[in-house]
Amino acid sequence: MIHRARAFLIAILLVAMMSAAFGGETMNPRITIITLGVDDLEKAVVFYRDGLGWPTKGIVGKKFEHGAVAFFDLQPGLQLALWARADLAHDTGLAQTSRSSTELSLGHNVNSAQEVDAAMARARQAGAKIVKPAGKTFWGGYSGYFADPDGHLWEVTWNPQIRVSD
Amino acid sequence: MIHRARAFLIAILLVAMMSAAFGGETMNPRITIITLGVDDLEKAVVFYRDGLGWPTKGIVGKKFEHGAVAFFDLQPGLQLALWARADLAHDTGLAQTSRSSTELSLGHNVNSAQEVDAAMARARQAGAKIVKPAGKTFWGGYSGYFADPDGHLWEVTWNPQIRVSD
Repeated sequence: MIHRARAFLIAILLVAMMSAAFGGETMNPRITIITLGVDDLEKAVVFYRDGLGWPTKGIVGKKFEHGAVAFFDLQPGLQLALWARADLAHDTGLAQTSRSSTELSLGHNVNSAQEVDAAMARARQAGAKIVKPAGKTFWGGYSGYFADPDGHLWEVTWNPQIRVSD
Repeated sequence: MIHRARAFLIAILLVAMMSAAFGGETMNPRITIITLGVDDLEKAVVFYRDGLGWPTKGIVGKKFEHGAVAFFDLQPGLQLALWARADLAHDTGLAQTSRSSTELSLGHNVNSAQEVDAAMARARQAGAKIVKPAGKTFWGGYSGYFADPDGHLWEVTWNPQIRVSD
């Protein structure tokens, strides 16, 4: 009985130690807002709002120093934010860094090659730089890349395996 | 009657012209995948999979040159992808660029200040660099910033106005 009690105690201790290491300290796989650092906030807003036609209340938060920002509603549960690089640097305490196109790519899936062409055409009309014209991909899809006015990459993709809902 | 017919014809023509300019050429506000360029794919996967505990099939696409990539399922309709910067540069035809922390910030909203602290603690344990310890924000919330192994910024935020579901 003493051995059993000891084993039980050790088990309790182990659980307590694991709990102390990770218990409650979780971060669920979720992104609720994607903030892009921009050089010229007004110009960036014009691209997404007027060029792509995306809904926004425009630049808000101007009354706060370093607070001017524009939000765009994407699919439910996700927003895009545009914020001056200088303000992001100020808020984080990091040095302001310059553009870096291979830092990220934002993927925009659609349901056909025709929709890829349409989105790429719209982006071009909006003033985007076409980085790679749409074409067949090595993995059996169809996609193209463009860059927004701040050099942030977007990949417009049709993946036959993925169906998106509008 | 002739004037009416002419006005009608002009109206039809105008609609046709607008249609030619933008008709069908739409890009809906949607992001389906966020691809982060990384210096060391294995190391980045270890951070998100083992450190944060996020679900993934690990590195796939190795049989394709420049195709090795890891996908993580986030909330429904959104994925995170990790891809070597060199491969993203190759796929886009852009020159490979170096890290730039003010390029973007990925926002992770939670429902309390305690959950912010828990997520920040988990990220620190996973090896993240704490860029700005969690604290009250100027807009009435509570947030902190950390950087992943490639310097990509994450902001863990409690915004009392926004409730997220797990």
